[in-house]
Amino acid sequence: MISFESDYNNGAHPKVLDALLRTNDEQTLSYGYDRFSSEAKEKIRQACDSPDAQIWFLAGGTQTNATVIDSILHTYEGVVCVSTGHIATHEAGAVEFTEHKVITIPEKNGKMDADVLDMFMDEFLHDGNADHSVYPGMVYITFPTELGTLYTAKELDNIYNVCRKYDLPLYVDGARLGYGITADGNDITLPYLAKHCDVFYIGGTKVGALCGEAVVFTHGNAHPHFFSITKQHGALMAKGRLIGVQFDALFTDNLYFDISRHAVEMAMRMKDIFSRKGYPFFVDSPTNQQFVILENKEVERLSKNFIFTRWGKYDESHTTVRFVTSWATKDSEIDALEKVVLSNE
Amino acid sequence: MISFESDYNNGAHPKVLDALLRTNDEQTLSYGYDRFSSEAKEKIRQACDSPDAQIWFLAGGTQTNATVIDSILHTYEGVVCVSTGHIATHEAGAVEFTEHKVITIPEKNGKMDADVLDMFMDEFLHDGNADHSVYPGMVYITFPTELGTLYTAKELDNIYNVCRKYDLPLYVDGARLGYGITADGNDITLPYLAKHCDVFYIGGTKVGALCGEAVVFTHGNAHPHFFSITKQHGALMAKGRLIGVQFDALFTDNLYFDISRHAVEMAMRMKDIFSRKGYPFFVDSPTNQQFVILENKEVERLSKNFIFTRWGKYDESHTTVRFVTSWATKDSEIDALEKVVLSNE
Amino acid sequence: MISFESDYNNGAHPKVLDALLRTNDEQTLSYGYDRFSSEAKEKIRQACDSPDAQIWFLAGGTQTNATVIDSILHTYEGVVCVSTGHIATHEAGAVEFTEHKVITIPEKNGKMDADVLDMFMDEFLHDGNADHSVYPGMVYITFPTELGTLYTAKELDNIYNVCRKYDLPLYVDGARLGYGITADGNDITLPYLAKHCDVFYIGGTKVGALCGEAVVFTHGNAHPHFFSITKQHGALMAKGRLIGVQFDALFTDNLYFDISRHAVEMAMRMKDIFSRKGYPFFVDSPTNQQFVILENKEVERLSKNFIFTRWGKYDESHTTVRFVTSWATKDSEIDALEKVVLSNE
Amino acid sequence: MISFESDYNNGAHPKVLDALLRTNDEQTLSYGYDRFSSEAKEKIRQACDSPDAQIWFLAGGTQTNATVIDSILHTYEGVVCVSTGHIATHEAGAVEFTEHKVITIPEKNGKMDADVLDMFMDEFLHDGNADHSVYPGMVYITFPTELGTLYTAKELDNIYNVCRKYDLPLYVDGARLGYGITADGNDITLPYLAKHCDVFYIGGTKVGALCGEAVVFTHGNAHPHFFSITKQHGALMAKGRLIGVQFDALFTDNLYFDISRHAVEMAMRMKDIFSRKGYPFFVDSPTNQQFVILENKEVERLSKNFIFTRWGKYDESHTTVRFVTSWATKDSEIDALEKVVLSNE
Repeated sequence: MISFESDYNNGAHPKVLDALLRTNDEQTLSYGYDRFSSEAKEKIRQACDSPDAQIWFLAGGTQTNATVIDSILHTYEGVVCVSTGHIATHEAGAVEFTEHKVITIPEKNGKMDADVLDMFMDEFLHDGNADHSVYPGMVYITFPTELGTLYTAKELDNIYNVCRKYDLPLYVDGARLGYGITADGNDITLPYLAKHCDVFYIGGTKVGALCGEAVVFTHGNAHPHFFSITKQHGALMAKGRLIGVQFDALFTDNLYFDISRHAVEMAMRMKDIFSRKGYPFFVDSPTNQQFVILENKEVERLSKNFIFTRWGKYDESHTTVRFVTSWATKDSEIDALEKVVLSNE
Repeated sequence: MISFESDYNNGAHPKVLDALLRTNDEQTLSYGYDRFSSEAKEKIRQACDSPDAQIWFLAGGTQTNATVIDSILHTYEGVVCVSTGHIATHEAGAVEFTEHKVITIPEKNGKMDADVLDMFMDEFLHDGNADHSVYPGMVYITFPTELGTLYTAKELDNIYNVCRKYDLPLYVDGARLGYGITADGNDITLPYLAKHCDVFYIGGTKVGALCGEAVVFTHGNAHPHFFSITKQHGALMAKGRLIGVQFDALFTDNLYFDISRHAVEMAMRMKDIFSRKGYPFFVDSPTNQQFVILENKEVERLSKNFIFTRWGKYDESHTTVRFVTSWATKDSEIDALEKVVLSNE
Repeated sequence: MISFESDYNNGAHPKVLDALLRTNDEQTLSYGYDRFSSEAKEKIRQACDSPDAQIWFLAGGTQTNATVIDSILHTYEGVVCVSTGHIATHEAGAVEFTEHKVITIPEKNGKMDADVLDMFMDEFLHDGNADHSVYPGMVYITFPTELGTLYTAKELDNIYNVCRKYDLPLYVDGARLGYGITADGNDITLPYLAKHCDVFYIGGTKVGALCGEAVVFTHGNAHPHFFSITKQHGALMAKGRLIGVQFDALFTDNLYFDISRHAVEMAMRMKDIFSRKGYPFFVDSPTNQQFVILENKEVERLSKNFIFTRWGKYDESHTTVRFVTSWATKDSEIDALEKVVLSNE
Repeated sequence: MISFESDYNNGAHPKVLDALLRTNDEQTLSYGYDRFSSEAKEKIRQACDSPDAQIWFLAGGTQTNATVIDSILHTYEGVVCVSTGHIATHEAGAVEFTEHKVITIPEKNGKMDADVLDMFMDEFLHDGNADHSVYPGMVYITFPTELGTLYTAKELDNIYNVCRKYDLPLYVDGARLGYGITADGNDITLPYLAKHCDVFYIGGTKVGALCGEAVVFTHGNAHPHFFSITKQHGALMAKGRLIGVQFDALFTDNLYFDISRHAVEMAMRMKDIFSRKGYPFFVDSPTNQQFVILENKEVERLSKNFIFTRWGKYDESHTTVRFVTSWATKDSEIDALEKVVLSNE
């Protein structure tokens, strides 16, 4: 069995693991005050071309979203996202657990539209009942989205302009950021991203680390007590070096982007295979997640050799499935997929 | 200016006020252990034909919803309601404040459809990601709905059957319960309601009281520490008698229903006036709230003499407005409305 | 049976009830935007000599404490109070329910000592683990305290100075404020109080109202979204006039202080009776709550004729009991107490 | 500089790291459903002699405490612990963040006394105001305590008996469990512990892992939705194998206990050195944390060569300091300490 189930089915990229090995015996301060974390942060600042950025390392995506959002919102405020947003669907209510509502607006291919956001805010502010509603206190988007799609630089700029118009901090969830940055046709770079949002995170768990996400407050705007807030959320690691060392490795010699590019290339091979077979796609994704619409019996057939996710029922006889690649995906695995998909047995 | 803005623009019904006056000098126990509260509860039990019902008096609707829902849900669960549900829209996130998500499903004329609920639950339970989602822990509906519409007895029965199928307690928000019970064509009685849900509340604030809602756990199913939970929610009144006395009055000699019937009659006169003028309705409401679609200049014209709510933009040239009646609405006020609406000046 | 159990065993003072009666038929805006609330606020501003004060009416004490405290604290902060503070003991965890810790420091006769607070803050800020602890974000005291004791003007000034030294807003819970202001020997006036804290509340429920507390942000420092925060806490009344009308009455012709002075006079008669009998007091209270140490069999004896609270076990053979007076306490009731206490039967 | 600051200043024990290396390329299921986690759980069940135990892996101590406690308590309940308990002091309010109060009772040498707990519960249940207080819903103790002290088997038995008397689940925080189990004179084994509490956790972070704690619900009593609860708390790791692999290594060939015993031996050497010098101890600790009372100038002198923690001011001229050993502490480091302490320069 070959797994295309997710980008977190393997351990760490060998270079990341090697860094943990090399640094293991050095005695350091705890709680993220170690020199590895400091060096990793500096490398990230440089990669983002953001000397004033404040960077924090947390362990996982849901934890990061809940902690960042709770650090920004006032008690009476909520976070705006599209209906397919990860915080609205698959985080088990972690945001509501911090007492904040996730306010959803319609999506298109998993993306937020700047005009839809603008109209939502305009209507909210003109609604006589606004004071009886949850106040929109920030905006959350994902890059790539949950469907693997990407915003263009222009689209991100438009959203950020609407956010500034209404004084709403913009937060970009980059759980799979690398796969977006390195996708064909993408025109958003790390420095561009850092200039077009208030806070984002660089996903490590899904891009070659054992765990870890790097939160980037882009312009010195982290809450002054963010340390205590992470502790309160159970998100502070005693051995903070665990994440610092990994990000230091990921941001040395472009490893983060090499990993990402490899996975995207594997995904593009996969996409080509499905296309040649004539399978329709649920959405056109240029990143490491591919959503294909399969006849149910084809789902059964492929399941004999491959692990992948049944994303949802498409219609009575079809299912949308998800195939994911990662740093660990091998050409030989895609070859195997190709052989089975294109054959008729 | 005559106000049709809401059913809480006046004080209490004279008989309610009179009861407060008559009982004022009697010394009682506090926190709801007074004899007036006991007597009121017994009268409500009888009106509901539910000898095992447990009854609690709280001060207002949002407080009641948050307290009841939080007393039922486990930490990881959410409450299912339609997208127009009051807890999803106009309670400032009071449910999320208790750490629970409000899970919305589509509505029709403000109502939940049993089949839609059934399909939602079926899909949820078959979703491989269910454990990463907020678990639906109970169902919330309103009677009448936020749009003044009513469930039939059969529709309520269908919803309750789906709830029992999935072991979901059903909670009915009756902020305007009286206006539903006494509406023409309604076939839901208090005893029927009590047998077709797990908990509901009988709204006092909007039906003649100064404040107060009576929560009815229909079959001995209140949380054993509901007292402490109300205290924790800031919902416990030191002078609990304030609400007990009022409900005692409301449930003496059918006052609650007389008040409600009067308001519905006034609303039906109003509805007739708008119909004669040819105004379309946003929804067909048999209760004390009437939603009419007016040309914007007609909104301006009526605003010179009447207070009512601009509910929302209908299209570029039309607005949906809401007119509400109450115990205090006088025939002469409806006469005045009739005169202005039917005239062309 | 005569009850000295609490100051909320009766209804409202007749003049308060009369005001509700007189204003009942007037149609008003809801949610506290009625003219009675406006007028009451203006009268309170004048009584406090604080033209910039922002005033909000809430229904009860626990609700008020939780709402005010949550509106002031950031997510990672807690509220400092003495170990006997009401929020630390008898509010069922309403503050923790808003996710904030109640940080307790030692008390003396129910009072906070400015030096103890100063030392606590000094140690906290010099503790290397401060970032792992709950940050003290504000200070809470009660006036009168839970034991009926009072701060002198000088003591309050000292506490407020420490608060300002550490930039901690000071909040004074005045559930029984009137009984403190009108006590013999008290040198704190409403204007003095308003100048020596950031927010306090004037208790209505325990001083002649049916319900209601007036929160006074003393210098324009209420949260700009306090309205939504009260809604989110379930603390917003649809018929806000209910509390506005009552406070309008309480602050007309000195009623609030007349009520309070009467109760204190009754309490002083009571204190004299216990003193003459030679009973020791648990604490020397100049206000409407008297804490007496009685032999257990004396507790039994007095219980035949009077209702009062067993406050706590004093030692094997003695119990601390609490007697409370209110606006409704009659001279004849104190006479009856005198007769029984001083007799030996 | 040699650091005795904490037991989390180094990376992982080499055998733990080696296990990560060996297993890295194997593709597994995510979210803890990997085979390494399953095998580790089975080994722990055997070490605890508890075939019905349910085991969950979380990342850190504060996170574990908040998640476990929140999974057990009802909304209105709090957790009882001694005033020095970690959840009461150095977790930044993580428990309150889940809306539960930490109810503190007095400690002795960092330990809870069964009689004190019994008396507290007895008084609580007989207090007429119990319903206005936070209900004690479970008990939390630490083993070893924050001061490095240990309960005897008899003391633990006594506490567990009181817990059962009042139907309070007992939770034992074992962040440093190994250092207690392997201490001289300790008579509590893993199986004994598992039979004398309802849930405990085996600390990994402080005992040789990079991160990770193993929660043991001792008798099939984990919340059925504990998975979703960990997700909601941000405590679910996508690559759950990271912790599974480490615990698999720790519970292979007694590694966990070997690590612990080594650290305790180093601590006993340290204790002997301080004793020979005549330094008084703040508390008599048989585990890997030693609390010594030093003259302030001695603190300065030792600080030139060693890193350790200033725990608190003892008196004007003395400070309590903490020295900690771990798996990584070398004999040569203790030699160096010996030389400096015993010298007079």
